[in-house]
Amino acid sequence: MENFKFNAYTEMLFGKGQIAQLSEVLKRYGKNVLLAYGGGSIKKNGIYDKVQSLLKDFTIVELSGIEPNPRIETVRRGVELCRENKIDVILAVGGGSTIDCAKVVGAAYYYDGDAWDVVADPSKIDKVLPIVTILTMAATGSEMNKNAVISKMDTNEKLGTASWNMIPQTSILDPEYLYTVPAIQTAAGCADIMSHVIEGYFSKTTDAFVQDKFAEGLLQTCIKYCPIALKEPRNYEARANIMWASSMALNGLCGSGKVGGWTCHPIEHELSAYYDITHGVGLAIVTPRWMRYILSEATVDKFVDYAVNVWHLQPSNDKFALANAGIDATEKFFKDCNIPMTLSELGIDKSNLRKMAEAAVKHGRLEYAYVALNSDDVYKILEMCI
Amino acid sequence: MENFKFNAYTEMLFGKGQIAQLSEVLKRYGKNVLLAYGGGSIKKNGIYDKVQSLLKDFTIVELSGIEPNPRIETVRRGVELCRENKIDVILAVGGGSTIDCAKVVGAAYYYDGDAWDVVADPSKIDKVLPIVTILTMAATGSEMNKNAVISKMDTNEKLGTASWNMIPQTSILDPEYLYTVPAIQTAAGCADIMSHVIEGYFSKTTDAFVQDKFAEGLLQTCIKYCPIALKEPRNYEARANIMWASSMALNGLCGSGKVGGWTCHPIEHELSAYYDITHGVGLAIVTPRWMRYILSEATVDKFVDYAVNVWHLQPSNDKFALANAGIDATEKFFKDCNIPMTLSELGIDKSNLRKMAEAAVKHGRLEYAYVALNSDDVYKILEMCI
Repeated sequence: MENFKFNAYTEMLFGKGQIAQLSEVLKRYGKNVLLAYGGGSIKKNGIYDKVQSLLKDFTIVELSGIEPNPRIETVRRGVELCRENKIDVILAVGGGSTIDCAKVVGAAYYYDGDAWDVVADPSKIDKVLPIVTILTMAATGSEMNKNAVISKMDTNEKLGTASWNMIPQTSILDPEYLYTVPAIQTAAGCADIMSHVIEGYFSKTTDAFVQDKFAEGLLQTCIKYCPIALKEPRNYEARANIMWASSMALNGLCGSGKVGGWTCHPIEHELSAYYDITHGVGLAIVTPRWMRYILSEATVDKFVDYAVNVWHLQPSNDKFALANAGIDATEKFFKDCNIPMTLSELGIDKSNLRKMAEAAVKHGRLEYAYVALNSDDVYKILEMCI
Repeated sequence: MENFKFNAYTEMLFGKGQIAQLSEVLKRYGKNVLLAYGGGSIKKNGIYDKVQSLLKDFTIVELSGIEPNPRIETVRRGVELCRENKIDVILAVGGGSTIDCAKVVGAAYYYDGDAWDVVADPSKIDKVLPIVTILTMAATGSEMNKNAVISKMDTNEKLGTASWNMIPQTSILDPEYLYTVPAIQTAAGCADIMSHVIEGYFSKTTDAFVQDKFAEGLLQTCIKYCPIALKEPRNYEARANIMWASSMALNGLCGSGKVGGWTCHPIEHELSAYYDITHGVGLAIVTPRWMRYILSEATVDKFVDYAVNVWHLQPSNDKFALANAGIDATEKFFKDCNIPMTLSELGIDKSNLRKMAEAAVKHGRLEYAYVALNSDDVYKILEMCI
């Protein structure tokens, strides 16, 4: 096991009605709140009104319209609002996009320069305004980690940044808030959770047993409960387990102590940067193709573990058959969740594949991935996705 | 899943040589350090000298001789030292006993009355001096949680207390520090880790799937690595996985969102309170007997999960046979780790069983356990242990 620091310090308030604690939580920081949210679904499902009624004693300034792939222009707008209104705390109500945007607003607030600098260079992040979140999507894990991803569409850049100081102070997770999440977002969210786990699971480090068992448990959680949530959107057990899995998948539990960078996320980030597609859908498309591409004598044992421990396939002496069956199961699972499983279905053709492949290798530093990939490799994987 | 708050905020510095960060960590709080430790093993294995050399710029006051079941007299002595020396931070170097003692010293420091009050009534705990730990035993999980257990031998009381403010700020976990832990302590530590997980796993809450998968993963970790650590005390992979499992077993990951109190711990606490035995040994003795005693039509399905998912026993239609095989495996495992598996071997006879059974029910509130137990039940379980 590699050396690591683990520090998932967010106070997680999980369960029905936990929003009742919101005012107690926020008043630790002050009276001036930046309320950050997305396209307005929180106005339809009642959370917006609930927040307003709970925060009558606070001064609320709104940053609304945060995009599904949040953009640097929105971050800049948020920073201005914070400075103009002497904001004490940012309340992000939404999914990963809203929370990511809030984090970078909080970081850029203390940075004396353009907000894009703290995205392109995380070492420029020092202090961060306190972040509190109310989660309305189970996917990115941003509610309990130090990461944020921001897009700059004029240059087709979608980059991740990170800081220990960007971790939310408190996150409120009420599984009932997931009842109205549309089916495709529920499925894409599970694909995102699974991808976070898979990126760490397939690692050159082979002795991080605790982390691998956690990973297998979280994958089984999505496999068990995603179909239930799709069939019965108001199934509390399914929503609760998926919601908790989202936070556990990317707070360091599965990835700490393991070497190697990620692969599918950097590749997908280029798809989103060029075509603004749903992140989880892109991941579901890329993941099984990447798996097939990297399956080899060197990786087959890990794929056997994956097939047996995650998909409960019968152990067999034909390691490659078993490994391929695990990959087949992955692809079939996403398909059965009604995720479009080709880029063509999203209207993406081959025209930008080469550019995206080159950018993925550069931004994702894929020479450090589980299996090192160059831009030809990524091009071939993307071609398999068409 | 039940509502819960999860907040395991400790900064965990894990791996070889992490002690190098000690001075950076401590200087966040001030210059005056209470160094708390036990019987002196840290002087033999070099950690004491290392700490002294790293903290040349600090003023160190020592609280030494903390007992394996730490006593209230030692806590009181620690509080006096903190007050006399204007201590800024407590550095606990040791296992759970030392860390538990440090926590209660830190809590009683701010309490205007006798230290035993904050043990008997956790609601009396408010502020706590910052706690930093260097872990030298993998067992209690105290390095990442809010619990502490203190003994008062004159009244045969061994009670647990807890506070969110008692969670250590930083814990340094270097698996190499476990190389010199004696075999019986290694085995007893694993029994303690497994018991923490088992106490939460067997719960009336049946829909906390994520938590159960984490629990099964941690149990498999102990089952895989305890025998390796016993055979090869300097096996880093084994020590690292056991050490990380100890922190994960009782930081809330496995128990959050589940109802029901604990059973084996309260029963064992009475054994320790009367006979000062090693906590993990007592747990190993009690656990399989408790399992046999509560196995019934109402609980058999959970025992089947336990047998199949933890011990990898072949699924079978005979649920009770499978459940019993899982319990047999548990008992055999502890025995194979050379843990004495009867109270007689520890010199304990029947003379205090009745008193201990009554105290366990009272202190442990066993009417709220997974299977409610009265003092007759506990008596019978203890009898099975003789």
